[in-house]
Amino acid sequence: MPLTTYVSLQSTFGQDIGGTQNRKLIGEIYSRSLKYLSKSRHEPLRSLIPKKTYFAFRRGNKLSRAVNKSLFVADVSEWKKFDAALTNRSLSKLGPERVTKIIYSVAISFCCFIDLTKDRDQKTPGTFFEYLISHLFAFWLGVKPTTRIQVLNLDMETWLPTDYIFNLGHNRPKFHLPIKLSTRERIIQVFAHQRVIDGVFGTERFLGTPVILAETKTAAKKREVTEICVPDQCRIYQLRMAQLKRLYYLDVPATYVKLNDVFPPIVVKSFGHFFFEAVTLSA
Amino acid sequence: MPLTTYVSLQSTFGQDIGGTQNRKLIGEIYSRSLKYLSKSRHEPLRSLIPKKTYFAFRRGNKLSRAVNKSLFVADVSEWKKFDAALTNRSLSKLGPERVTKIIYSVAISFCCFIDLTKDRDQKTPGTFFEYLISHLFAFWLGVKPTTRIQVLNLDMETWLPTDYIFNLGHNRPKFHLPIKLSTRERIIQVFAHQRVIDGVFGTERFLGTPVILAETKTAAKKREVTEICVPDQCRIYQLRMAQLKRLYYLDVPATYVKLNDVFPPIVVKSFGHFFFEAVTLSA
Repeated sequence: MPLTTYVSLQSTFGQDIGGTQNRKLIGEIYSRSLKYLSKSRHEPLRSLIPKKTYFAFRRGNKLSRAVNKSLFVADVSEWKKFDAALTNRSLSKLGPERVTKIIYSVAISFCCFIDLTKDRDQKTPGTFFEYLISHLFAFWLGVKPTTRIQVLNLDMETWLPTDYIFNLGHNRPKFHLPIKLSTRERIIQVFAHQRVIDGVFGTERFLGTPVILAETKTAAKKREVTEICVPDQCRIYQLRMAQLKRLYYLDVPATYVKLNDVFPPIVVKSFGHFFFEAVTLSA
Repeated sequence: MPLTTYVSLQSTFGQDIGGTQNRKLIGEIYSRSLKYLSKSRHEPLRSLIPKKTYFAFRRGNKLSRAVNKSLFVADVSEWKKFDAALTNRSLSKLGPERVTKIIYSVAISFCCFIDLTKDRDQKTPGTFFEYLISHLFAFWLGVKPTTRIQVLNLDMETWLPTDYIFNLGHNRPKFHLPIKLSTRERIIQVFAHQRVIDGVFGTERFLGTPVILAETKTAAKKREVTEICVPDQCRIYQLRMAQLKRLYYLDVPATYVKLNDVFPPIVVKSFGHFFFEAVTLSA
């Protein structure tokens, strides 16, 4: 079962966050989640989002969260190709969209497995998603993340707990990486943390690049899928609070795509692009 | 049952937020909640907070949230005295601590009633608490609140949804009043909203005066009560994000009291003080 492998991942994850052992365990969790899900029924959902189709897995009276049909790949060989290309740093033969799909599939398949086997467990899927994304970041950038930064100010000395921070070293920027299954109206927190970090260390020392799975919500009775987005508020936050460098999604919300085209622009992309632009971002 | 009265309050609340009809219904909800709770057993909890004693109500296998023993008053005549003194604006004979106790008791008794009769319903207690506090503010200040403000900026025009805003009129400040059962590590949101409002309208045009019930958390199995507080982070937010004018609590967390004595100070008080200093604050 995926949970046994997840427990192994939990116990060893911190030892070498970007290490190959973690990637091996993540691949095993994906493969075992798929095996479990292959015995579950697909139940179509009514998508209220234009051009997106969603379904859920059903097991007895339990229904999983919504899965984006065009992003979901139930194929372990895709993961293996991604794993190999990542190791050889030859992702260009896959391209950003195929990379996004495989990472989305790894994340959502374990989330759905938990949805079908546990009661209201939000913590395990969230932690797994943090492991997945922070591992990929740590491997790709070749640095270990930290999750707090020291704040010094005259007679005040304290530690600020943060999301993941990747420090590329002297004279290079640092990444500030909130990792969330969804943010909804809580997206203000991402901007607020960026604001504090900018205030303490100066603007652009930390690049804010949150990675979020999706903003979907399923109305249980009606089986309707919507996206909870606050694009107007994001514009105000980008203008008034702090500037995010990227807003990465695995399943990019329809209304947030438009943030690329307004002023102030917020660059919203599918997460697969990260691997292709990381060098430029951190130059 | 309190719920019937709550439904009436819900349907008429918006018509005259500071009106006497709302206060009458709130009193009825308190009295009916007490009646229900009087048939429930008190179960002592292990308080890990120095000098504070907590208990919970039990009904069958359901346990309510934690109740602060020294703040809880199960006495409708106290509410009646408060109601009369509020109407005559003669609260000084009661004093801030007695006022805090009665408001705490009204809030927590309905919360506990819901805990014992519903499954994981967080929305109803939260909404009732918003009704209670916004009614008291609206009555005391003599103005109706709004919950959004217009943001104009060159070619950009949008509405920012906010917590309660009380506009005292020309040449007088406005109150920005988040009302929450608890904030825990989400307290950053309160500072973040204040930051946006300060940015749009200028510093000190809106006084940030959040009203929060408590920061307690009960570990279900161990029956232990703790307070989830982030005092160091609050200091950083007060320094870097925005300045709150007051942090009002019904059950003031032990570690937040100390914020009064550090730099930058955050003035943390029990909510009863609001009625005695509202004139000074808004002068």
